[in-house]
Amino acid sequence: MQVTADQADRAVKASIKKASELGISVCIAILDSGGHLKVFHRMDGAWLGVIDVAIKKAKTSALFEMETQIMDNYSKPGADAHGIDLSNGNLMTFAGGIPLKSADGKVIGSIGVSGGQVAQDYAVAQSGESALKA
Amino acid sequence: MQVTADQADRAVKASIKKASELGISVCIAILDSGGHLKVFHRMDGAWLGVIDVAIKKAKTSALFEMETQIMDNYSKPGADAHGIDLSNGNLMTFAGGIPLKSADGKVIGSIGVSGGQVAQDYAVAQSGESALKA
Amino acid sequence: MQVTADQADRAVKASIKKASELGISVCIAILDSGGHLKVFHRMDGAWLGVIDVAIKKAKTSALFEMETQIMDNYSKPGADAHGIDLSNGNLMTFAGGIPLKSADGKVIGSIGVSGGQVAQDYAVAQSGESALKA
Amino acid sequence: MQVTADQADRAVKASIKKASELGISVCIAILDSGGHLKVFHRMDGAWLGVIDVAIKKAKTSALFEMETQIMDNYSKPGADAHGIDLSNGNLMTFAGGIPLKSADGKVIGSIGVSGGQVAQDYAVAQSGESALKA
Repeated sequence: MQVTADQADRAVKASIKKASELGISVCIAILDSGGHLKVFHRMDGAWLGVIDVAIKKAKTSALFEMETQIMDNYSKPGADAHGIDLSNGNLMTFAGGIPLKSADGKVIGSIGVSGGQVAQDYAVAQSGESALKA
Repeated sequence: MQVTADQADRAVKASIKKASELGISVCIAILDSGGHLKVFHRMDGAWLGVIDVAIKKAKTSALFEMETQIMDNYSKPGADAHGIDLSNGNLMTFAGGIPLKSADGKVIGSIGVSGGQVAQDYAVAQSGESALKA
Repeated sequence: MQVTADQADRAVKASIKKASELGISVCIAILDSGGHLKVFHRMDGAWLGVIDVAIKKAKTSALFEMETQIMDNYSKPGADAHGIDLSNGNLMTFAGGIPLKSADGKVIGSIGVSGGQVAQDYAVAQSGESALKA
Repeated sequence: MQVTADQADRAVKASIKKASELGISVCIAILDSGGHLKVFHRMDGAWLGVIDVAIKKAKTSALFEMETQIMDNYSKPGADAHGIDLSNGNLMTFAGGIPLKSADGKVIGSIGVSGGQVAQDYAVAQSGESALKA
């Protein structure tokens, strides 16, 4: 079971709404549970550099089934799996990537957001994730 | 001047409508004129393999400012620039990629579609392009 | 609107002059605002290794619209976006990359310099940027 | 012994002059004999896609010490080394890449030109090469 186009569109729409309220321009990437691109949206005014960051955040959350900032506990200098962020063509290990789950708790994809301050990106990604459940 | 998020969304929506009428599931990629991802949509049921094809078609049309099948006249075996499709991380040289232009004829981005038969992909991309002008 | 060949040549010429005064051999890369190479110059005697550093500095400044050393505030260990330098095929986050702007403040490209000490690279890049305005 | 910055600049200047006479906009890449970028110039109006083509033509000529169209005799379907153009991150095997040689016939670098018709690219590259000897 994978995130559907309808679900992804709903997540993107909610994310754009939240980002607009925050007054920021972000990229939003929705991947399926295999890490393959499902839906992507770059708001006008977002930096070109955050296209890849949003996708990599979503990839990190899809491939390791956790929020990106959790991965940091394992990947940071001195931690058990220090440097694991250099795997898989590089991971992003700060907030903004969240796994998307079905009603029964299975990972069906992920969302990655980048473009604002990190706490803002996270709030936008949470909005997107919440919209999925609605 | 670059394709806006509104224009890109309109192009994607029109492409999905056309693909649905044709009974096919495609990926639609909209890039800006620099070849950077603006909006992407994978319809439910589309092969995973066509994600990259759609993006590469759009990239080909953005970087060379021409429809992808035109590039084939130059790139095919025996043609003047045979093998140019091995440049830029590989190009796609069959129909489905179209430059997007502003009212005054400037390239502002491109659309790439993949997932159906090639003639169908082209028809879907044309629908997307037309929606931009509406 | 993008940096022109004339502007790029002027920036490179001024950079070479400054580097010569400092007695160093550098690489100078000028990109457009989409991160695409416009003009590049490797002075005789520059290390081969700094070709990529100069280009990556310029890429960092084009894609994130900021001087490279500013990015370090966000990307360094412990900072909010720690590890963002692993995005976009790797960024450079020490001084020597500067966005190039039009008279009305729009980013039209970037300059990246590498080959001397970091403070020298930065001074050379500033010379290049100033020449653009002249 | 390697192509110097002065020689490279001279080759680029002559190439631009020739391209302007032909009414085309091209990219010109000068590499050293190790295939490392020395000088690059993108004329205003050149397609973004030909940046990589010019560099790959020059790379092909530097790494195999021959004009790019000669390589085609070996790389084309049915030829002895068919598919060798897929090595080295992909080669370009149509005209526009030429080795640069010292007075005593040693390869000191290469020039690659792309942006016009293939015969035009070749003529421009030849102008660049000739300027080196002047």
